[in-house]
Amino acid sequence: MPETLGFIGLGKLGSAIATNLLAAKFPLRVYNRTPEKAKSLIENGAVLSHTPQEAALPGGILISVVSDDRALQEISSEQVLSALGPGGLHVSMSTVSPETSRRLAEQHGRGGVSFLAAPVFGRPEAAAARKLWICNSGPADAKKRARPIFDAISQGIFDFGEDVGAANVVKLAGNFLLTAAIEAMAEASALAEKNGIPRADLLNMFTSTLFNCPIYANYGKRLIDADFENAGFTIPLILKDMRLVQQTAFQSQSPMPLANLFCDRYLTLLAKGKANLDASALALGAAEDAGLKW
Amino acid sequence: MPETLGFIGLGKLGSAIATNLLAAKFPLRVYNRTPEKAKSLIENGAVLSHTPQEAALPGGILISVVSDDRALQEISSEQVLSALGPGGLHVSMSTVSPETSRRLAEQHGRGGVSFLAAPVFGRPEAAAARKLWICNSGPADAKKRARPIFDAISQGIFDFGEDVGAANVVKLAGNFLLTAAIEAMAEASALAEKNGIPRADLLNMFTSTLFNCPIYANYGKRLIDADFENAGFTIPLILKDMRLVQQTAFQSQSPMPLANLFCDRYLTLLAKGKANLDASALALGAAEDAGLKW
Repeated sequence: MPETLGFIGLGKLGSAIATNLLAAKFPLRVYNRTPEKAKSLIENGAVLSHTPQEAALPGGILISVVSDDRALQEISSEQVLSALGPGGLHVSMSTVSPETSRRLAEQHGRGGVSFLAAPVFGRPEAAAARKLWICNSGPADAKKRARPIFDAISQGIFDFGEDVGAANVVKLAGNFLLTAAIEAMAEASALAEKNGIPRADLLNMFTSTLFNCPIYANYGKRLIDADFENAGFTIPLILKDMRLVQQTAFQSQSPMPLANLFCDRYLTLLAKGKANLDASALALGAAEDAGLKW
Repeated sequence: MPETLGFIGLGKLGSAIATNLLAAKFPLRVYNRTPEKAKSLIENGAVLSHTPQEAALPGGILISVVSDDRALQEISSEQVLSALGPGGLHVSMSTVSPETSRRLAEQHGRGGVSFLAAPVFGRPEAAAARKLWICNSGPADAKKRARPIFDAISQGIFDFGEDVGAANVVKLAGNFLLTAAIEAMAEASALAEKNGIPRADLLNMFTSTLFNCPIYANYGKRLIDADFENAGFTIPLILKDMRLVQQTAFQSQSPMPLANLFCDRYLTLLAKGKANLDASALALGAAEDAGLKW
């Protein structure tokens, strides 16, 4: 029988991952700030923890999928680290800054706990279908120990070495790339429509030829359908990621003019009261600038 | 036996297309400003024309693949239109502005000549392998007549209706999208390298997962190898296209902040004496801004 896992963070992504771990026979001790979200997991055999530390077993594995650096910091409390203790492993799947991962790894290490950064690529639908991609970085033995967990929830794992912050940089770079794809499709679509060409004709051609890959196909379809309400990945979350890109770019002296533009696009959406829309609503910026209604 | 075709413009792309037309048994009358480039085609049975009008037969088809709007204007002379005459068809495969196509279509029409815009996607290597994608727009009967030609040189044809400028807008949008992909990969790669992650590790992951499509794979490989000297598509050509994007965006009131950035990136490369590099050298902008040497 697989070992019991602690699991913290039952948002859309976390819930999908936890469900697949249960299906793969991992006994789970789950914690979420709003315990209602644990309901269906409990019905399927998970044990509800009332505090983060209750989810952690001595020398065990704790997985966290939380929304930002602050939440990750909060659940990495002294109580949680004491509960895990020597031989414990914290697998951090959240999208956070590389600096946070490096600082937490050091803090965990003082208590004999390993810290592995393992952010994932994939929207909640992909997580539910076990189609996530995982990039990890940190201690080699931690990666080896976490491998059966990753195999149960993903379609592939990429290793970025011993620097625990590296996987976070890669994750941020990936979210930046997908945002760039949306902005580029949006500007091209606006240009097409202002010239009498339906954006569906333009995007269907490109996403079936030169750009026939998941990001362009999925987000291209959202642009065509103006499907921005059905938010798997909301604007405050993607804006948080773009700010982490800017912050990491700043700290490493790597100017990123596109990232700056994307932050402004998302800020405008917030300013217009559209925080509940999907990340793909970035496209509304180029459309509205061109006087189009999507 | 297929009908004889006039063919003007034997640059890298034009030569590859003409070679495939000869291989498909179309008799060719070829013209190029520098006739030396026709040498291997002549050896394979093409007839050399010494003027553009000599390539045109009464009521025949004339194909042109030239470098810019001015060159297309020049070969669309009164002599050439008279030589084609009523029932003639000019298939224009160059990347030019939609305005130029619309104006030329009108001018051709006055002499009873049809004008079809049929720009292609694909670098010279793709053209040689008959892997071009063609988008066409213009009169329906012209498309039907040109179809056997397109079938001999491409892997697929997309129709954008009767407005002869539409296919040019789509072509410009496509070159804009590919440039955006290069810039995004470049900024992400610079960020990665400034954080200790080789760009090959980053790009190999993304181009085999979320971005596993031809544009990302091909240009990602060029970025990894810093392969900018082997220019299939030089900077003056891509900059001309980005200026046409800006011009079309201006005329149709469709702001495109990314296109403006790309023009500046390419201008900087020209200013630094790097006109002979490939379009993918756009990536050097983000790298140099971050103090990196690729």
